Amino acid sequence: MKPLILIANDDSISSKGIRVLTEIMSEMGDVVVIAPDTHQSGMGHAITMGVPLRVTETHDFGPKVKSYKCSGTPADCVKIGKHLILKDRNIDLVVSGINHGSNASISVLYSGTMSAAIEAAMEGIPAIGFSLCDFKSDADFSHCHDFIIKISQQVLAHGLPKGLTLNVNFPAKSETAPKGIKVVKQADAVYRERFAERKDPYGQSYYWMDGDIEHFDKGNNTDLDALEENYVSIVPVKYDLTDYDELKEMQSWDL
Amino acid sequence: MKPLILIANDDSISSKGIRVLTEIMSEMGDVVVIAPDTHQSGMGHAITMGVPLRVTETHDFGPKVKSYKCSGTPADCVKIGKHLILKDRNIDLVVSGINHGSNASISVLYSGTMSAAIEAAMEGIPAIGFSLCDFKSDADFSHCHDFIIKISQQVLAHGLPKGLTLNVNFPAKSETAPKGIKVVKQADAVYRERFAERKDPYGQSYYWMDGDIEHFDKGNNTDLDALEENYVSIVPVKYDLTDYDELKEMQSWDL
Repeated sequence: MKPLILIANDDSISSKGIRVLTEIMSEMGDVVVIAPDTHQSGMGHAITMGVPLRVTETHDFGPKVKSYKCSGTPADCVKIGKHLILKDRNIDLVVSGINHGSNASISVLYSGTMSAAIEAAMEGIPAIGFSLCDFKSDADFSHCHDFIIKISQQVLAHGLPKGLTLNVNFPAKSETAPKGIKVVKQADAVYRERFAERKDPYGQSYYWMDGDIEHFDKGNNTDLDALEENYVSIVPVKYDLTDYDELKEMQSWDL
Repeated sequence: MKPLILIANDDSISSKGIRVLTEIMSEMGDVVVIAPDTHQSGMGHAITMGVPLRVTETHDFGPKVKSYKCSGTPADCVKIGKHLILKDRNIDLVVSGINHGSNASISVLYSGTMSAAIEAAMEGIPAIGFSLCDFKSDADFSHCHDFIIKISQQVLAHGLPKGLTLNVNFPAKSETAPKGIKVVKQADAVYRERFAERKDPYGQSYYWMDGDIEHFDKGNNTDLDALEENYVSIVPVKYDLTDYDELKEMQSWDL
């Protein structure tokens, strides 16, 4: 029997990245797509609490692929897949992406793509987030195909330990094919934000936030290093945020 | 010189919890409040990318406290505090909350309160998220005061290691005072979601998502155990999600 694969993302059901990922996954299993109806980049692990959700079947991926768009966040999509749409079926794999833009380093924390994968891990389903270091809407994903098949087959064959998910990032397409895959750590970094002030027609200020990433962790076997060297990076990511070393240390605090 | 303390939350600048926290922190330092103008519970580590931000000075906390409301998320509030409002000043401590509702166990991942604290940690600022296991808008926070002072003083005195923040949860107010503080791990658990279907006046379905938490991890020195025993729980939380054990394991994969 073919594996049942649930696909989500954060760039919305209309993005090129989810179309490419759906085509690739259709080679490997039965595919169901549940994705946000609008762009949800930077949504982190947001869920919808104060308003109800809309879920609408779509026909964007051909007759073999069931697909749904949802008014909620990437994490909502996985909850809807597990507990509403596919509630009587065993999901073998959740894949999220392919994201238009890097989710390496600390971007994992802001990433809707990765929150869908982490949500699946919380549900005990093996899950992988795929992202390309190119945020253009017509980005070239052609070099990702063989890596996605290889990584997904490994996960389907071996599973993943409880609580784990994979954060996979691809270098942008270039004249040179990626050199291979490196399993690495999340690079420590920070966004140095800028706030550009503008005035609206009524004279009131508003601010555009953007910023540059500053990488503190160069040369320490990180995802940013691997990508810079034209490797595909995989970070094994866990949702248990407890710092166990510090938990021991803090026993000596005066509390 | 008094420490400079930045306060954020996810329940909005109008909530009781941030008012109580501001009063407590004003005993210890110079306080600046930057909080969302609307309720942002469940926003996780969302940041605002596609739209600009509004930041407006308010006068809700008396003449000694500078305060601002912001159209963005809890994580945005910390970025605005660090890089726009207080950009020439050294922030000694960021506190977030007091949240109306628990952020123990896996709720840390969905929590806007904790994302503000984690964002501060990413900026290298010692930070603490405070939450009360009572989501009522008029919740009684009176038993939290002494614990908040004690924990904040310890953090101001000793700092926190780079990358670390504290997730502090208080049991709901009861006739018995909390027994003390326990430093514990994040309980493993999952939300078992329910989707209640309703019809709008046009006959179209919509869904309300809610669910119950299922605790897998009972008796393993977790935050949920501590709270159940009427202790204040502290989980040391890190934003490096890398699973280092699995990173070693995966070197044997065929990739």
